[in-house]
Amino acid sequence: MDSGNAELHPENRSLPPPDDMVGCDEKWIKKAILEAMAAAAQGEVPIGAVLVKDDELISTGRNSPIALNDPTAHAEINAIRAAAATLKNYRLVGTTLYVTLEPCVMCIGAILHARIDRLVYGARDPKSGAVSSIYNIGQDGLLNHTLEIEGPVLEHECAALLKDFFGKKRQIRKQARADSI
Amino acid sequence: MDSGNAELHPENRSLPPPDDMVGCDEKWIKKAILEAMAAAAQGEVPIGAVLVKDDELISTGRNSPIALNDPTAHAEINAIRAAAATLKNYRLVGTTLYVTLEPCVMCIGAILHARIDRLVYGARDPKSGAVSSIYNIGQDGLLNHTLEIEGPVLEHECAALLKDFFGKKRQIRKQARADSI
Repeated sequence: MDSGNAELHPENRSLPPPDDMVGCDEKWIKKAILEAMAAAAQGEVPIGAVLVKDDELISTGRNSPIALNDPTAHAEINAIRAAAATLKNYRLVGTTLYVTLEPCVMCIGAILHARIDRLVYGARDPKSGAVSSIYNIGQDGLLNHTLEIEGPVLEHECAALLKDFFGKKRQIRKQARADSI
Repeated sequence: MDSGNAELHPENRSLPPPDDMVGCDEKWIKKAILEAMAAAAQGEVPIGAVLVKDDELISTGRNSPIALNDPTAHAEINAIRAAAATLKNYRLVGTTLYVTLEPCVMCIGAILHARIDRLVYGARDPKSGAVSSIYNIGQDGLLNHTLEIEGPVLEHECAALLKDFFGKKRQIRKQARADSI
């Protein structure tokens, strides 16, 4: 048997085939979207994350710097801290982090420290995305650790959450200015 | 009076003159070293940080990912989270963060999110330093926010802590191997 056939054999596959993986990724990004919607309901920028191991949910996180008075309380960091507390381990080997927005510099740093194996993100972030848009941290070979990165996944849905949130904010500000005249 | 003279006038100075600033920076890095030593005493990699506003201590932080089961619990993040909780504000405008080791990607990201004005670090980190050694985040003009960065300050003292810590760890491992033969 050549190595190609060996990889195709079900018992030898370390990852599901592409179609299954796409389905899995979309399923978990949808779960992260629910977290983002919960963040928006609390007046926070709608970004959500879930941490998964062997297709099982380990933790969730939603953006909450205002509510928690914590500039580090991004969705990814909250999910990572919750998972590490649950597993009683500061390394999260064998896990995948799903997040609705391309991680910033801080979050990809945390993802690497946690030794997360795989990252899947929803929408690209042209202003501060640190794994594709502005920097390529985690895959540029400049640090000791790397990880597998997939994205964008369900980009339209993930970006729409943010567009809607900021659109409503602008509308409220505009109305407030009009009322004050 | 030309603008040069205006800047030199004591009442017009927004920052102390260089000699005073060097003294201030060394004073606060020494305080951060005490935090690093406390981390080492707990078996953590000795890195310490303090957050300062108007030459007054706001918070301290020491590296504690193992004790807290938290991969994000670097000295800088702990100091930032403590300060934001104390000030009940996720923005730490007008502050300076002192840390014994050049920040990693995660920590410079957090420093930027917190809108810290100035960063002073002790030793350079050739493996993962993200403000000078590997990346130049915060001053490379690629993100919306920048900050003033000073370092290395008391590099020998800060680096010696790490060298001593890892030297002792190697010695213990060597002894354990010798004992098991």
